[in-house]
Amino acid sequence: MFYSPDFCAENVLLNEEESHHIMRVLRMNVGDVCEIMDGKGNVYTAKITKIMKRNCAFFIQNVEFFPKKEHSFHLAISPTKSIDRIEFMLEKCVELGIDKISFLITEHSERKQINLERLQKIVIAATKQSKQKYIPIIEDMILFKKFIEKNSFENNNVNAKNTQYFLAHIDKETQSLKSIIEPKKNILMLIGAEGDFSKDEIIVAKNKKFEMVSLGESRLRTETAGLYANFVYKWINE
Amino acid sequence: MFYSPDFCAENVLLNEEESHHIMRVLRMNVGDVCEIMDGKGNVYTAKITKIMKRNCAFFIQNVEFFPKKEHSFHLAISPTKSIDRIEFMLEKCVELGIDKISFLITEHSERKQINLERLQKIVIAATKQSKQKYIPIIEDMILFKKFIEKNSFENNNVNAKNTQYFLAHIDKETQSLKSIIEPKKNILMLIGAEGDFSKDEIIVAKNKKFEMVSLGESRLRTETAGLYANFVYKWINE
Repeated sequence: MFYSPDFCAENVLLNEEESHHIMRVLRMNVGDVCEIMDGKGNVYTAKITKIMKRNCAFFIQNVEFFPKKEHSFHLAISPTKSIDRIEFMLEKCVELGIDKISFLITEHSERKQINLERLQKIVIAATKQSKQKYIPIIEDMILFKKFIEKNSFENNNVNAKNTQYFLAHIDKETQSLKSIIEPKKNILMLIGAEGDFSKDEIIVAKNKKFEMVSLGESRLRTETAGLYANFVYKWINE
Repeated sequence: MFYSPDFCAENVLLNEEESHHIMRVLRMNVGDVCEIMDGKGNVYTAKITKIMKRNCAFFIQNVEFFPKKEHSFHLAISPTKSIDRIEFMLEKCVELGIDKISFLITEHSERKQINLERLQKIVIAATKQSKQKYIPIIEDMILFKKFIEKNSFENNNVNAKNTQYFLAHIDKETQSLKSIIEPKKNILMLIGAEGDFSKDEIIVAKNKKFEMVSLGESRLRTETAGLYANFVYKWINE
């Protein structure tokens, strides 16, 4: 499977990166047939018609459209100091069918920057490998409060009623995710740094109708909590 | 939290590794109080009474025993070529409360050896970090057929009736794990290499009453499948 976001009936040139892979690595030739996805639900079966210096051109034999599922999982997480952990989590989340991931700068964040380009490459590789039909959206780091403003119930005109807003919180009195998560809903899950969210941040989120949820009894690392939430979303919707 | 498997009322000397950490890294002194676990459910609160060249000795102030849960999750998996993936999975599985992990040599295995000592260190670090009270058992690589012999229904005298035997299989007709997994059961889950189990291996497992299960529609990598099974076990028992 190859990924070329602009590939369509009007543009049968594969992008440079994937063309390079086809021509130089796999050494495919005119007449060979490939599967090409545009990351927006279309999967093309296409035959190579021309090998050029930087691209190859195709004749589309067939196109299949896979409709998007009707609900989504959006994870907003404060990345760990060790980026390896976030990269691994990201890859797994893509395999599990995550729709969107945002990175939060919180009061207790240890990391304020990410290499978005590198993470995007991981997302694309994992999407292709796991044969997903849509490329998940990945957003650069954003201040917690700005994120909440932008993504709160009030500003979600289309899907607010069909969305559950959760903040994972380590507290014995918090209700469990298990007790309130519902299938066929959009889920927005906020996960903090190792030191949890600050009191201030929790108040901000509560004011915007985020529900505090616990992810079970054991103490999970940040990236494990992200993974766990995604597994739960997949499990209840299967 | 420190881990010393032989620590008890009759042996109040901490092992060398943890003693080194206390004395040289944390620079603790006589009179300081530590939490020490033996990985078998006992957590000691103990005060340092003597600092020696290689060990420190303690006075036990309190001991709390945490009973083992009544069911267990045992994962038997064919490790991936890239050991990083297995190491990450292992760490996450420990956080999620795995009880036992075995490594299988299957027909399609790409890796026939593991560094058991290194993996054991990961298990211990993750057990301490996530405040589990029991150190999961980790077993060296074993041939698939030998493993099945040793762990089948017939040879499980104590818990056979309370155990579900699963083999994760990529096949459209396989029933889903979701439809047959039950809470409060011991789970033994077999997961193959990227190329799945061979036909022969599947026959062997079926003959020993293993049930074929699918882990959902998306194509999961080996280590993601292992994680997924563990998440499911945690989720249904929470």
